[in-house]
Amino acid sequence: MTHSRSVDLNSDVGESFGRWRLGDDAALLEVVTSANVACGFHAGDPSTLRETCGHAAAHGVTIGAQVGYPDLAGFGRRFIDMDPAELTDAVLYQVGALEAMARVAGARVAYVKPHGALYNAVVHHEAQAAAVVRAVREHGGSLPVLGLPGSQLLAQAADAGLPTVSEAFADRAYTPRGTLVPRTEAGAVITDPAVVAARVVRMVVTGEVEAVDGTAVPVHADSICVHGDTPDAVAMARAIREALLDAGVRLGAFAS
Amino acid sequence: MTHSRSVDLNSDVGESFGRWRLGDDAALLEVVTSANVACGFHAGDPSTLRETCGHAAAHGVTIGAQVGYPDLAGFGRRFIDMDPAELTDAVLYQVGALEAMARVAGARVAYVKPHGALYNAVVHHEAQAAAVVRAVREHGGSLPVLGLPGSQLLAQAADAGLPTVSEAFADRAYTPRGTLVPRTEAGAVITDPAVVAARVVRMVVTGEVEAVDGTAVPVHADSICVHGDTPDAVAMARAIREALLDAGVRLGAFAS
Amino acid sequence: MTHSRSVDLNSDVGESFGRWRLGDDAALLEVVTSANVACGFHAGDPSTLRETCGHAAAHGVTIGAQVGYPDLAGFGRRFIDMDPAELTDAVLYQVGALEAMARVAGARVAYVKPHGALYNAVVHHEAQAAAVVRAVREHGGSLPVLGLPGSQLLAQAADAGLPTVSEAFADRAYTPRGTLVPRTEAGAVITDPAVVAARVVRMVVTGEVEAVDGTAVPVHADSICVHGDTPDAVAMARAIREALLDAGVRLGAFAS
Amino acid sequence: MTHSRSVDLNSDVGESFGRWRLGDDAALLEVVTSANVACGFHAGDPSTLRETCGHAAAHGVTIGAQVGYPDLAGFGRRFIDMDPAELTDAVLYQVGALEAMARVAGARVAYVKPHGALYNAVVHHEAQAAAVVRAVREHGGSLPVLGLPGSQLLAQAADAGLPTVSEAFADRAYTPRGTLVPRTEAGAVITDPAVVAARVVRMVVTGEVEAVDGTAVPVHADSICVHGDTPDAVAMARAIREALLDAGVRLGAFAS
Repeated sequence: MTHSRSVDLNSDVGESFGRWRLGDDAALLEVVTSANVACGFHAGDPSTLRETCGHAAAHGVTIGAQVGYPDLAGFGRRFIDMDPAELTDAVLYQVGALEAMARVAGARVAYVKPHGALYNAVVHHEAQAAAVVRAVREHGGSLPVLGLPGSQLLAQAADAGLPTVSEAFADRAYTPRGTLVPRTEAGAVITDPAVVAARVVRMVVTGEVEAVDGTAVPVHADSICVHGDTPDAVAMARAIREALLDAGVRLGAFAS
Repeated sequence: MTHSRSVDLNSDVGESFGRWRLGDDAALLEVVTSANVACGFHAGDPSTLRETCGHAAAHGVTIGAQVGYPDLAGFGRRFIDMDPAELTDAVLYQVGALEAMARVAGARVAYVKPHGALYNAVVHHEAQAAAVVRAVREHGGSLPVLGLPGSQLLAQAADAGLPTVSEAFADRAYTPRGTLVPRTEAGAVITDPAVVAARVVRMVVTGEVEAVDGTAVPVHADSICVHGDTPDAVAMARAIREALLDAGVRLGAFAS
Repeated sequence: MTHSRSVDLNSDVGESFGRWRLGDDAALLEVVTSANVACGFHAGDPSTLRETCGHAAAHGVTIGAQVGYPDLAGFGRRFIDMDPAELTDAVLYQVGALEAMARVAGARVAYVKPHGALYNAVVHHEAQAAAVVRAVREHGGSLPVLGLPGSQLLAQAADAGLPTVSEAFADRAYTPRGTLVPRTEAGAVITDPAVVAARVVRMVVTGEVEAVDGTAVPVHADSICVHGDTPDAVAMARAIREALLDAGVRLGAFAS
Repeated sequence: MTHSRSVDLNSDVGESFGRWRLGDDAALLEVVTSANVACGFHAGDPSTLRETCGHAAAHGVTIGAQVGYPDLAGFGRRFIDMDPAELTDAVLYQVGALEAMARVAGARVAYVKPHGALYNAVVHHEAQAAAVVRAVREHGGSLPVLGLPGSQLLAQAADAGLPTVSEAFADRAYTPRGTLVPRTEAGAVITDPAVVAARVVRMVVTGEVEAVDGTAVPVHADSICVHGDTPDAVAMARAIREALLDAGVRLGAFAS
């Protein structure tokens, strides 16, 4: 089967902190086309950022700023009711810090993706979504914003004239309405690499995914989010990559 | 008395953190020509950095990155035996973060000055001095480095081809050898604004300062460091500025 | 006018952090009978905690643990959606740390009061209120909990068999229903020391306060919360204390 | 071979932080008799401390406070030139916080051991050693101090009337003078479990260890420090335990 579809694979990297290691970034950067690099607020010390940018650049992987709440203890996974102006400044600070590291590696920060609880918040939270968009605009140029289709974040980014990139999740179950099954429900996460790989190919090639009730629902995926923080996750990411290539899908970053 | 000497006045600003306010930055930025803006590691939250860069730019004051050890609890005043590579990355991170804030204000980070215990360390500590110099070089371009004459920092910066800027201290007593009287000794800090102002004028105009034994010792000052973290300090900074202008000295930043 | 009413005066203290000073604790500890000492998560470094406990003990002021979210940058004023089990452990950690400091001063932690956004959250947030109550119970003994009348916190603390202490706010306007006028509304904070002092006396002596519509609403106040983070606030706290003493009210801590 | 020698086995535990896991504490707590539990300054969030104390208590392992510099980013492995008074207060704070967690588990903090760079500093640094000793004394009672024989820490602790506990290192090479071969030198760390186990047995049974030049040097070991932050390390700890038991050595904590 040949056709001209292409897609991006993105994953979180650079989430070690000092003595604490997390994820097999070296392996993952051989799989993905876009690297969401932590910026020091939820994870990632300066040397980890630098090393990660260096590895990404060496592998030709595009670097994105994975911005989060200032919460190392919570790994950015706890909603913080930040004042929007402070959130804007926190995002700008993180993007700037990562930009310095990317430049040392001969690269650039090419997009922005919120992390963890911030990612979830800006699906619905208008003021925090606006705060992130404002930061991206103020950073200068017009970096693409990577996020959930239908989110406040992407809607407001589009309104602000920023490129938006919709992502789908490789290993998550979808409801008939096209939303993610909450992690608290059984079957929310799919763990069989073959099943996941087949679903991703279908998403990319046909623009559909099978929902939990068996119906086909449309999914728009410019990028597929894969995980890499366990050995199994890296194996799954590889399986997804292989399946896409086998299906004739071209893998490529949406930005550079 | 007329002549063509000019000098820079620099001061630490942006050292508030969240709820905690420190220094009268608004007043100080009307006095100095170069602002050493804290970068978030020893002081300065993202919103403080942004606001400070905005005020500096509005007053035509040049912005420098006041880089420090990662130590909010110690305000960067405690030596930390950081690995040089980690120190380089910590400095790059800080400069990058501040650069993002400076750009939002329509400005740029135009120089680098170490803060507190790092400032003192790089007078003698070869490896940490080299780490700071490496960070400035890797940041790209060739930002000037502001520091103590005779320090490892300035020596290594010069060797690396970076512009160096020597500073003198407005309110500190000097030994006959031209070094600072340690703060632990009586008379180390001069508190009379008139005396301080007169000493600064002499430093700039004649290149000399009166040491504690009454002898005149040579002092090379491209920039004069003034303090601003108390109401008295701001008044003294104003007195110094006025005295220099009265003596026909032109005030101007060494970079922009 | 003589009668036998007594009341406690409580205030936040120990909220400095390293180089950053906040509040005139020395003056305030001469006014209040209970000191809500910050525990290091939203404010308060170890040396500040120790010094504050020492001052409180020297003045015979009861020490309470002012527990908060782990958020120095936000001063504990931003809601954090912490997992209840983690919140319980965070409260236990803070109480334990302060207990060590109180013991060095020859005193004890005698009560617990949530700070800032946590204080506001546990008015309504059942799970976080339960988490705080659980921490107090697990700490051992049965420390009183100081909070807002009608809050989840006090209701659950009472259900758990803990002593509860209701506080009223000296300088806040009340609605006809007995709740606080939100700070975002005009007139929410009363700034005239004489008016405030008279209101506090009325609260304590008659159990009533004049609401914004002029009606009298019942207020139950075991303790009056006063502020001390500005020179004006200390003056107001003194005025309240004097007015209460003049009215024959006895000032005394609810615990020791 | 039967005899009546007994020895303690100690290891660092509780060094995870939030999302970041470190060490196989569950396995290690089945091997050692004393658990050096991190206290939150160099590692260990409140929930990790609580869980670790619970596991230690369940296994009958004595809990010690593993106190460190306030440096999560450096994992407490970088010397910080802290003011002695601030160091005393930082140690007190950590011991108090851990005490609260130990009590919830029905246990107590039974000793104090400095971590990482602080451990190394108090071998020679008189003022920091005195600061740690002062904290232990002020904490009340007379907790034993675990450290390096011949260190300032143990000398000053003994002078202050505190019980001192000398430790030897299972996997480290010794010089003919009885000091540790620096980690920077080849052969500093011994990796063969059988060799390590035999050395430990000899240390405990005969009070001697073979130095790098083949001579026997005296070693006084009340406790043997084993590591557990890698799978290999846990296996080695088990080998040491088995070898000691096989040699008729009784394993028991020095405190409880």
